[in-house]
Amino acid sequence: MAIVTLLTDSGESDHYVAAIKARIISINPGIRIEDISHKIEPSDIAHAAFVLKAVFRDFPKGTVHLVGVDATGNRGDAYIAVQLEDHFFVGCDNGLFGLISEKPHQQLVELNAINTVNTTFPERDVFAPAAVKLASGVSITNLGIPMATFKKMIDRQVKATKKQITGTVVRVDRMGNLITNIPKEVFDTLSKNKVYTVQFGGEKFRKIHLHYNQAEQGECFIVFNSLGLLEIGIYKGNASQLLGLEYDSTVNIIFEE
Amino acid sequence: MAIVTLLTDSGESDHYVAAIKARIISINPGIRIEDISHKIEPSDIAHAAFVLKAVFRDFPKGTVHLVGVDATGNRGDAYIAVQLEDHFFVGCDNGLFGLISEKPHQQLVELNAINTVNTTFPERDVFAPAAVKLASGVSITNLGIPMATFKKMIDRQVKATKKQITGTVVRVDRMGNLITNIPKEVFDTLSKNKVYTVQFGGEKFRKIHLHYNQAEQGECFIVFNSLGLLEIGIYKGNASQLLGLEYDSTVNIIFEE
Amino acid sequence: MAIVTLLTDSGESDHYVAAIKARIISINPGIRIEDISHKIEPSDIAHAAFVLKAVFRDFPKGTVHLVGVDATGNRGDAYIAVQLEDHFFVGCDNGLFGLISEKPHQQLVELNAINTVNTTFPERDVFAPAAVKLASGVSITNLGIPMATFKKMIDRQVKATKKQITGTVVRVDRMGNLITNIPKEVFDTLSKNKVYTVQFGGEKFRKIHLHYNQAEQGECFIVFNSLGLLEIGIYKGNASQLLGLEYDSTVNIIFEE
Repeated sequence: MAIVTLLTDSGESDHYVAAIKARIISINPGIRIEDISHKIEPSDIAHAAFVLKAVFRDFPKGTVHLVGVDATGNRGDAYIAVQLEDHFFVGCDNGLFGLISEKPHQQLVELNAINTVNTTFPERDVFAPAAVKLASGVSITNLGIPMATFKKMIDRQVKATKKQITGTVVRVDRMGNLITNIPKEVFDTLSKNKVYTVQFGGEKFRKIHLHYNQAEQGECFIVFNSLGLLEIGIYKGNASQLLGLEYDSTVNIIFEE
Repeated sequence: MAIVTLLTDSGESDHYVAAIKARIISINPGIRIEDISHKIEPSDIAHAAFVLKAVFRDFPKGTVHLVGVDATGNRGDAYIAVQLEDHFFVGCDNGLFGLISEKPHQQLVELNAINTVNTTFPERDVFAPAAVKLASGVSITNLGIPMATFKKMIDRQVKATKKQITGTVVRVDRMGNLITNIPKEVFDTLSKNKVYTVQFGGEKFRKIHLHYNQAEQGECFIVFNSLGLLEIGIYKGNASQLLGLEYDSTVNIIFEE
Repeated sequence: MAIVTLLTDSGESDHYVAAIKARIISINPGIRIEDISHKIEPSDIAHAAFVLKAVFRDFPKGTVHLVGVDATGNRGDAYIAVQLEDHFFVGCDNGLFGLISEKPHQQLVELNAINTVNTTFPERDVFAPAAVKLASGVSITNLGIPMATFKKMIDRQVKATKKQITGTVVRVDRMGNLITNIPKEVFDTLSKNKVYTVQFGGEKFRKIHLHYNQAEQGECFIVFNSLGLLEIGIYKGNASQLLGLEYDSTVNIIFEE
């Protein structure tokens, strides 16, 4: 069964999400729709990109991801469909898709360039019909005009030397846990047999745990999470509030010689 | 496949919505359930009516819309099933259904009048079984006792003269955008070749845009939105907060001779 | 069609819920997934147990309930699958399942004891695969190692004598209604022909209503709700805020001789 996922910043108290679903069902009632989230902060591309990057590969290959975050974009932003890592993405070329994968795209077309639908609601009027076509087996090349590239923004990069890894918080989750961009592979490569200190805010820790519950209640845990990223939290507490860290805060791992 | 949509003010942190869905599935597991929203403000009929009116026609004809907003209603309010514009609606006759369409209803029955189920949870115990029957092809006339009419409340009307259109904000959406009840057709009919001013709060504008992104960031846009209604917003900002306008605020369009 | 319900404290602004669903779909795309709630307060076992207990029996027998609330639990808590009242439950043995039924369990196994998956995200990596197997017809005894018992916490009990019933608020719902643990059967048994007073906060009432709308707007209603439990509310108001009562507040029913 073809799957279309939805990721929007539309919230759940208006008609927008239901209108997108209704359009999809009206075109092809056989499609399975799965919500990723509609609680992305309005026009927050970094939030949306984090969530999409974290989960899209968990869906079966061939899944179509309709992304209605900052859907109108800035003047001149195209509406696009992209094939990337054997998944399809439909949305606005506002920079979001450039943040979810470092692999080159497989196919890329501009939607709505021919027979343009003039609309203030592209999620329903442009993205939904395109997503249905992709999920129904229509070739992406039949959906629009080929494009060479889409927008790439430069994401915060981890700085890693033999002495230090410096990363940033890329997401504060519902629990208040601080997810950084420091990958386990980088740590494993650099940390071999070395004593290290994890620093953030005014705190210093000398241990990375395997599980959240290896900390005592109210104490800090530091783990490599299910995304393979360094995550800092307070066991049964809100680390963001208690430690005063937020999106874009710095986290260092310092190695001793 | 038969579709039942759900629109409630039950929120998502209790068992209520799941209990409605479980009842539907238990009676007929073949039914497709689609959420419109469960984030309607408690007993806010205006909010619910706006959302339902904005989206019900996007679903296929024959869709059954179960509405659990102010579900108990006031003393004496009947539980009803209505056929309207080839859609079915099941809920409480609390005035909500009178706000979603100006067309005459096709069929109308009172539910729960014979073999009355005495319950504090009519969404689960009365509306769900009726919705399943409708979605399964049972004739609406077999569901209850025919009624002549249901409650009609008088909605805020737009006042339109050759000199001026006066409307009100009928919905502040998640983004803070102000959706009015001023239809594009009325504006188009009256504005021909005339210079006009759009006034709201202390603001005056002389242009209606085609797209949200025709305004600069932080500036006002005014568009006719995907519902054909005049909508005021701040591009990448919250118009309701920044302009101090809210539900029921007045918006004028004044034509020069 | 096999059903898997989801009940988590993961919220809806992160990737977690979508990751669980994606895992289920990837293993068996024929499974129907139904959300109970993802808005359980973080690690709030009492909240989750109330919601689950209130609704699980409304689903068809054989339904699999995946519970990701306080999913990691405390050190030493096992991951388990339980068969109880002909439903299946998968989650952490953190005490939650001990609160949803007083019946003895039918089957109980420890998951993840053989071929242990080491993960910080057991909902996706342990519970989802187990839930899919159960929903696909695999015997629960094939999922893990048999256990004798799971954690039982002692829930707040109602005290009932010929003179008085004393209960507590076990849930404040979205509307601010106060749901107590006082069952209708206990009241019916003790109240025969007696005059009674319901007391809570500084309030005293001498009548239990049949319906919410038997109170006037802004006044108190007291009903036995659809769960058969005494519920106190303000008609079209928020009883918790207006009466100053909350989770664990005491409610008394006093009988006169």
